[in-house]
Amino acid sequence: MSTPLTGPTGRRGPNSSGPRVVALGGGHGLAASLRALRRVTDDVTAVVAVSDDGGSSGRLRDEFDVVPPGDLRMALAALCGDDTWGRTWSRVVQHRFAGDGQLAGHSLGNLLITALWEETGDIVTGLDWVGALLGAHGRVLPVATVPLEVVADVAGLHPEDPSVLERVVGQVSVATTRGEVVRLRLEPRDAPACPEAVEAIGLADAVLLGPGSWFTSVLAPLQVRGIGQAVSEAPGRVVVILNLEAQAGETDGFSPQRHLEVLSRQMPSLRVDTVLADPEHVADVEALATAARALGARLALAPVAARDGSARHDVDLLASALGGVLRP
Amino acid sequence: MSTPLTGPTGRRGPNSSGPRVVALGGGHGLAASLRALRRVTDDVTAVVAVSDDGGSSGRLRDEFDVVPPGDLRMALAALCGDDTWGRTWSRVVQHRFAGDGQLAGHSLGNLLITALWEETGDIVTGLDWVGALLGAHGRVLPVATVPLEVVADVAGLHPEDPSVLERVVGQVSVATTRGEVVRLRLEPRDAPACPEAVEAIGLADAVLLGPGSWFTSVLAPLQVRGIGQAVSEAPGRVVVILNLEAQAGETDGFSPQRHLEVLSRQMPSLRVDTVLADPEHVADVEALATAARALGARLALAPVAARDGSARHDVDLLASALGGVLRP
Repeated sequence: MSTPLTGPTGRRGPNSSGPRVVALGGGHGLAASLRALRRVTDDVTAVVAVSDDGGSSGRLRDEFDVVPPGDLRMALAALCGDDTWGRTWSRVVQHRFAGDGQLAGHSLGNLLITALWEETGDIVTGLDWVGALLGAHGRVLPVATVPLEVVADVAGLHPEDPSVLERVVGQVSVATTRGEVVRLRLEPRDAPACPEAVEAIGLADAVLLGPGSWFTSVLAPLQVRGIGQAVSEAPGRVVVILNLEAQAGETDGFSPQRHLEVLSRQMPSLRVDTVLADPEHVADVEALATAARALGARLALAPVAARDGSARHDVDLLASALGGVLRP
Repeated sequence: MSTPLTGPTGRRGPNSSGPRVVALGGGHGLAASLRALRRVTDDVTAVVAVSDDGGSSGRLRDEFDVVPPGDLRMALAALCGDDTWGRTWSRVVQHRFAGDGQLAGHSLGNLLITALWEETGDIVTGLDWVGALLGAHGRVLPVATVPLEVVADVAGLHPEDPSVLERVVGQVSVATTRGEVVRLRLEPRDAPACPEAVEAIGLADAVLLGPGSWFTSVLAPLQVRGIGQAVSEAPGRVVVILNLEAQAGETDGFSPQRHLEVLSRQMPSLRVDTVLADPEHVADVEALATAARALGARLALAPVAARDGSARHDVDLLASALGGVLRP
C-alpha cells in the first residue's frame, strides 16, 4: 500500500436545512429511521453498531479483523441519493452474491467498504468515500473504531434453575437466545468511541434511539462508554422510537413499556424527551406513559406501522411523525 | 433481482477532440497503450480479451460463469479520471485482498464488475457504470459477450518428436508453455463478438494491436470472428505496437519480425499501416522492415521503452510516438 487515500471533499453544504439529527442503532431498524429522517432534514448522521458477528460481516471480521461493515453499509444505502446515480450504486452496494461458492452470501458493499478501509487506513474516511459514491444525504459513522463483541448475562437457560445467569457471547447468539437478557456489556470494555460520532451527538438537535433489535442494535451501542456518556449529556432532545412488536429471541414477550424499562436499567443516567409509539401496537397506553415518564419523557402516539402487517415502520408515516416530534 | 439497471447517461461529449482510436488487447500491455493514448486523444475505446482463466478472474469465471473481468478492470483503471475522485476509485477498483482466506487474491474491481453484471444483466452496461464511477476517459468493451478459452496447437512438447503438435488448453497454460505455439483458436468457435466493439472498430480512425502477451492477449482477440473481420476491413489505420522483448513461455526467443510473422500467419487477411518499435530493441532493422512490408506496413522507430530496463513501455514516450503515428 502506498500513501493512504484522503477523504472526499465537501460535506454539509451551504443549503443544508432542518435540524441536525443523529440516529443510533443498526440493521433494518436504523435503515428505516434513516429513510424517514432524510425526508425531514438534510443533516443526518447515523451512528452504527459494530458488533455483528454473523453472515458476510462476520466472515469479513474473521478474515480481516475489521469492524463488521454490514450495518454501516445498510445505513449508507438508506441515505443514498434520489437520482439514477444514487439508486444504481445503492443497488450495487446492496448486491449479494448467490450460489454456493467462496463469495456466496457476501455483500458487494461489505467488500467495497473493507477495501476502502485497507486503502485509506481509516474507518471514517473509507465510509465517507462510500457516502460520496452514493451521493448520501448524511454521514454514517461507527460507534467504535474496533470490532465489538456483545456479551450478555442471560436467565432462563439453566435446565434446573431459571434464575441462574449464563454468559452468552456474540451478537447472533444473544439476538436469538431463548433466555432473558438481564445484563449486556461489550468487549473490549474500553473500546474507543469514534470521535466523530461523539462530536456529532454533542452537536445534534436531536438523538434518535431505535427502532431495531433492542439489546443488540439499540442498547449495545450505548455501552460504548464515550457514546453512552455523550447521549446521556446530549444538549439536544433524545427520542426513543419503539419497536412495533417484541422480537423472537432477545425481546420475546416484551411489552412496549418493558422495552423502556430495560433501556433505563442498562442506562440509568439516560434522560429521554420523547417516546414515539404506534397506538395500534400499544396494549396499555397508561403503563407505557408511566414508563416514559420514569425516563423523563412524554409519550407521542402516531400511526407509524406499515399497513402490510409486517411489524415494520412505514417510511412515510415515520417521516411524518418525526417531522412533528422534531419540530423546534 | 428486480428491474435490470440501465446504463449511465452521457458519453463522448461535445468537446471531445483527437482521433477515434480503438486499442485491442489485454493485461499490462493494453493498460500501457491506454495510458499513452489518453494523452493523445479523448476518444479511446478498449476492446479487451476475455480468455483469462487464472487468478481472481479465473475463480470468478468458475464461480459465476461470467466473462473474466480482470483485463477489463485493468483497462478501466488505466483510463480513470485525473482528479482525486478518479484516482481514488481507480485505486479501490485495483485493490487486491491479501492473506490466505476466501477473499485472498481477489481484486475488488473484479467483484464490483461481477456484481454490476448481475444487477444490470448486461456486460456493456455494467462496464459503462464502472467507467462512469472512474470518470474514465474512454470506453472499455469485451471482444466477446461470453467467456472464451484459448486453445493452442503447440510443437516441441512431445518427448521424442518435437514436430508433434500437442493441444494446450487455457490462457495460463498457453502463455507459459515451454513449446512453440503453431496455431491458436478460441472456444467456443462461434463466440458472439461484442456488437459495440465491432461498431467501434468500424468507426475508428485507428486500431491499435499490442503490446502484450502476443498469442494470448494480442492474437487471441482477433480470433473472435466478428472482431478479426472488423479489423481486417477497418477503414481506419491499423497500427501494431511491438513488444520490447520476447516473453518467457509463449514467445520465448522470438525476434521482433517473428512477432509479425505469426500475426500474419494467424490473420492472413490483415493489412497493417504502421509497425511501431523501439530501435534499441530491434537487432535487425532491415529484417523487421521487410516483415512489416509483408503486412503492407511501414516501420516506425521511436524510443518507447522505459528507462528502468523493465521491457515495459514508458507512457510518456509511447504517447509521444503515438502522437506522431496517429497524426492525420
